[in-house]
Amino acid sequence: MLNEIDQETAGDLVRVAHLLADAARPATLEHFRSAGLTADNKRPADFDPVTEGDRAAERAMRDVLAAERPDDAIFGEEYGASEGTSGFTWVLDPIDGTRGFLSGTPTWGVLIAVGPAEGPIVGIIDQPYIGERFVGAPGIAETTGPLGTRPLVTRAARPLSEAILFTTFPEVGTEEERHCFEAVRDAARLVRYGTDCYAYALLAAGQIDLVVEAGLQSYDIQGPLAVIQAAGGIVTDWDGNPCPNGGRVIAAASKEVHTEALALIQSRLK
Amino acid sequence: MLNEIDQETAGDLVRVAHLLADAARPATLEHFRSAGLTADNKRPADFDPVTEGDRAAERAMRDVLAAERPDDAIFGEEYGASEGTSGFTWVLDPIDGTRGFLSGTPTWGVLIAVGPAEGPIVGIIDQPYIGERFVGAPGIAETTGPLGTRPLVTRAARPLSEAILFTTFPEVGTEEERHCFEAVRDAARLVRYGTDCYAYALLAAGQIDLVVEAGLQSYDIQGPLAVIQAAGGIVTDWDGNPCPNGGRVIAAASKEVHTEALALIQSRLK
Repeated sequence: MLNEIDQETAGDLVRVAHLLADAARPATLEHFRSAGLTADNKRPADFDPVTEGDRAAERAMRDVLAAERPDDAIFGEEYGASEGTSGFTWVLDPIDGTRGFLSGTPTWGVLIAVGPAEGPIVGIIDQPYIGERFVGAPGIAETTGPLGTRPLVTRAARPLSEAILFTTFPEVGTEEERHCFEAVRDAARLVRYGTDCYAYALLAAGQIDLVVEAGLQSYDIQGPLAVIQAAGGIVTDWDGNPCPNGGRVIAAASKEVHTEALALIQSRLK
Repeated sequence: MLNEIDQETAGDLVRVAHLLADAARPATLEHFRSAGLTADNKRPADFDPVTEGDRAAERAMRDVLAAERPDDAIFGEEYGASEGTSGFTWVLDPIDGTRGFLSGTPTWGVLIAVGPAEGPIVGIIDQPYIGERFVGAPGIAETTGPLGTRPLVTRAARPLSEAILFTTFPEVGTEEERHCFEAVRDAARLVRYGTDCYAYALLAAGQIDLVVEAGLQSYDIQGPLAVIQAAGGIVTDWDGNPCPNGGRVIAAASKEVHTEALALIQSRLK
């Protein structure tokens, strides 16, 4: 189906994706760094926070879809699945990085993806506070922000020993997953932690070489996946297979650095 | 001396501190996310990068001081110490978080502090890409950024079990220091990693409760110190003493959370 989507349909999906991101900006910023912001805990055994900002942003995006593309299906982190008839599904994470959102950091993001069952063809990573948007779609790979509009192109191939790696570890993952991550970490030049979806935006923008994570949901990865692929990068699971449903993910700027990092991960997987 | 500084002098120091931050913005942004940005390694055993952005920003700030306050001393990360006769020293970190700068993250900052030998009385944390500035001085505690100008007030006291902790660990520190950090981490509600000086800005802005770090230099802490103190927070070393020269640092939003975290650190120090 991916090759059968006509240009007009793709253009309309991009148009509506921007409308969604536009709608989520005020909904999130109304709550970001507000004095009364509190978190509910979705998973009492752990700390899995959700704020009114998450819910308001997803509602704002669903309202746009109801008006603009009522026949599409929706899967959102906060309000779950809504069926459709068009064959297209919107996958929405209204605030990826709610811990960062609660802490005031500017590296959380609104993640938007849409595509057929095989995976997303249009993706947006939007950072409302900075006013920065990263877009990937057929024929489109660009970012708009404080430095203007620029093309998104991933970094040229380089050895893993010269690569910059981002991750959510040590915050997530099983012991086995941590060992796999550490194998890549020890071989990379530089590692940075805890930037949530912003790491994928930096990869698409040619700033970093690798993101290695585990425990992702579809709404965590589909927006970044479409942006990175449009920018020339590669996103797979830890076995090298497509990963539109999340799980263990490796995103790379080039085939070469992907191959090298994947081999290290595979060597530690039981 | 801190109590003897007249209002006119303090006002002039604030005026010039803003001029320095203004001068550093274009000097850093010219290099941030630029295609040709490369790093020199200041400490070959490790990876201690410095970029032309660091050097250009410090030169721009030194030019302002030469014109506006030629009698003050300067201590800058890249160009070292210049003597003065006024009794005031400017302590400058042109890019705190060069690893983040190299990676494209928006949480590096320009750190500016000035004061007598006892410590800084005026401090600025500036984030040029976001266009966000945090200022602390006698009678001044405010931030200006995408959401406008707002007062800086640290968070109200709360138990450590409800606190948000930021740190540069696991990137830095000896084994003993990591154990101390982990004692605080295990008692806190939420921990976030790797935001460089931006963590101190968030503490001053009332977003988070604690920053625990080790291995700091004077230019890493003096700007944040003045901002946090003006906002009502506390910054000490791990023995509870003043720390204008850096080292092991704990910054807290309130006396209560400072006391609780410091006790845990002390219990693990050999």
